[in-house]
Amino acid sequence: MTDTPPAARLDLDGTGLAVITLNRGERGNPFGFEMARALRDIALTCDGDPAIRAVLLKAEGRNFCVGGDLNTFAAAGSLSRAVQDMVFDFHGALAKLARMRSPLIVAVQGAAAGVGVSLVGLADLVVAGASAHFTTAYGAIGFSTDGGMSYTLPRLIGLRRFQELYLTNRRLGAAEAQAIGLITEVVPDETVQDRALALARQIAAGPTVAYGKLRHLLLASYGNDFEGHLEMEARLLAEACRSDDVQEGIAAVLARRRPAFQGR
Amino acid sequence: MTDTPPAARLDLDGTGLAVITLNRGERGNPFGFEMARALRDIALTCDGDPAIRAVLLKAEGRNFCVGGDLNTFAAAGSLSRAVQDMVFDFHGALAKLARMRSPLIVAVQGAAAGVGVSLVGLADLVVAGASAHFTTAYGAIGFSTDGGMSYTLPRLIGLRRFQELYLTNRRLGAAEAQAIGLITEVVPDETVQDRALALARQIAAGPTVAYGKLRHLLLASYGNDFEGHLEMEARLLAEACRSDDVQEGIAAVLARRRPAFQGR
Amino acid sequence: MTDTPPAARLDLDGTGLAVITLNRGERGNPFGFEMARALRDIALTCDGDPAIRAVLLKAEGRNFCVGGDLNTFAAAGSLSRAVQDMVFDFHGALAKLARMRSPLIVAVQGAAAGVGVSLVGLADLVVAGASAHFTTAYGAIGFSTDGGMSYTLPRLIGLRRFQELYLTNRRLGAAEAQAIGLITEVVPDETVQDRALALARQIAAGPTVAYGKLRHLLLASYGNDFEGHLEMEARLLAEACRSDDVQEGIAAVLARRRPAFQGR
Repeated sequence: MTDTPPAARLDLDGTGLAVITLNRGERGNPFGFEMARALRDIALTCDGDPAIRAVLLKAEGRNFCVGGDLNTFAAAGSLSRAVQDMVFDFHGALAKLARMRSPLIVAVQGAAAGVGVSLVGLADLVVAGASAHFTTAYGAIGFSTDGGMSYTLPRLIGLRRFQELYLTNRRLGAAEAQAIGLITEVVPDETVQDRALALARQIAAGPTVAYGKLRHLLLASYGNDFEGHLEMEARLLAEACRSDDVQEGIAAVLARRRPAFQGR
Repeated sequence: MTDTPPAARLDLDGTGLAVITLNRGERGNPFGFEMARALRDIALTCDGDPAIRAVLLKAEGRNFCVGGDLNTFAAAGSLSRAVQDMVFDFHGALAKLARMRSPLIVAVQGAAAGVGVSLVGLADLVVAGASAHFTTAYGAIGFSTDGGMSYTLPRLIGLRRFQELYLTNRRLGAAEAQAIGLITEVVPDETVQDRALALARQIAAGPTVAYGKLRHLLLASYGNDFEGHLEMEARLLAEACRSDDVQEGIAAVLARRRPAFQGR
Repeated sequence: MTDTPPAARLDLDGTGLAVITLNRGERGNPFGFEMARALRDIALTCDGDPAIRAVLLKAEGRNFCVGGDLNTFAAAGSLSRAVQDMVFDFHGALAKLARMRSPLIVAVQGAAAGVGVSLVGLADLVVAGASAHFTTAYGAIGFSTDGGMSYTLPRLIGLRRFQELYLTNRRLGAAEAQAIGLITEVVPDETVQDRALALARQIAAGPTVAYGKLRHLLLASYGNDFEGHLEMEARLLAEACRSDDVQEGIAAVLARRRPAFQGR
């Protein structure tokens, strides 16, 4: 008898990098109850563990995430209740991943559809393989969005492009996704995981106190008026300036050497 | 004696598509009292008739809309009052067109200037001919904006580009308008009306319950904080999941056939 | 004995154009106490003098602005307090420059880093030389942002690109900065000052009452809901329509001549 492996797992490497792996690669990592529940627990850890300085989200298999688990939903007595159940855990996890101090780096291979694109939208930095592709997918089955897609995508790619992607369900290639601002970087398919890991390690070695404050500012930016945002910037900068990392950062620039940040 | 035809007319085709036609093509469909009043009545119908699933806005003549009717305004005793009168009906109509369930598709030939660009900004999908061109126009005569242009355009094309377009009144060609996100699609001039109609029919045959919820989410997106938006997504998705169209959409995907949506 | 020239100076030319010059060109115009204090006084004048119709911000030397004055900060007893002191004046100045009626035109040569990019973000129109380059810089020394950068840049270039620029500190060339919407126009290096001055004079000769209202609308746009913004547009347009410039603008269009605006 073999235990079923968890739908997603979390690995901490002891250097400040946490790696989330979607673990249903043979099926394209569809989002159902198990995946949402696993992500819920993982997100609480990522948000709560002060040793974590950056989080990398990646997926097993040929496809990053093909979207919601339609077989599960089709089998549910009440589709609406089943979706609400799944979304309850999923959205709770996203709120933690959005508010945690650590930047979120996402590595995408193959297909990202529906929830998969929502996860891409949540990230700070996204590395994708040249043959990766992106489909909003919700509209094709009569869903409005979840996963914050209608919050993040208009801010990332502009309202016009998101309207088109949702209403026509057009598939975006990696190059176009990069050109319009959905993802950060396109690399050869065989180097996606290496490049994303290197980028995540670089971020984890950065001045992560400041990164956390910047993430907070960006979540507040669209709702703040200009002067309120200036004051928020001033107060968070004053806090950041009490960190060891700022002392190190300024000293390194003045000495023309590379800084060694500690995340505190 | 011939009656003057209405400044704009509404045609319902019985399949869920409503077509609004600006009807002063010989003069470039300028916006004055009659046009605003006609659009007011049409917008109330588009918003109120549950059989309508998509709305196509098009215009007679060589130009989509050349802007405000300056001759009318110049003849007014009080320019400010005359503009307020026109805008009262115009903005009321726009609020209905923005909040209605049905997506709005716009077809543009020739010039879109001032109010014409505001109408483009309101749309979900915009098809333009290759020789169509776009001018914000307001600034050139000392107007600030109306028609929601200073709400929609920063969200569609970014703040920097809108600042330039307003302050310099630079004319945008169709290709550049598509590249920066003002419009969705550029087609050969002679096919604009056919292509826009085909796209509108495609949308009208889609899962329009979900489309309406997505439109609601996008109007709320910039004002919501992230968690509030997640909850709004969850609640609207739960509602959409009670529609017949979601059952059909999931069944069609699982059976690898095309769905037949009913808009309910 | 020679008096130290002011860190920044203001020149009024009597035709409605005010020119701010950053005056520490030999050091790259770093922002410290003096610069912030000088900008504070200048901003109050730009906001308060009704004869000013446009403001041009330019800099002496090879570089527009290399960022915060790290030597000053490193020498401070309390870094956090020193930064707060500087930012207090700097942000107060930015609020005045953001709310003043006059559009702000910025001319960039060489490097714009940190605060330099924040000033670019505040502008309505930005002209840069072909070899100008842009670096967010804050993240490299453990700073979160100031100067409103995390308010303006997401609105100008989209959230994804700003996340990348902050977290990786990648240097943007002028052409890419223009392509993504950080700046308005790229010109040959030797013509930057002439072109920016010509553009600023053109704006100063425009219908600046309306320009001021448009600037107000854009500061409110992201926080307004659609209908509230429509009403704000209607009310400000009604005010603009009582200006002499609107009468002149409409008359000029109808007579097919160039308008002569007075800014009232």
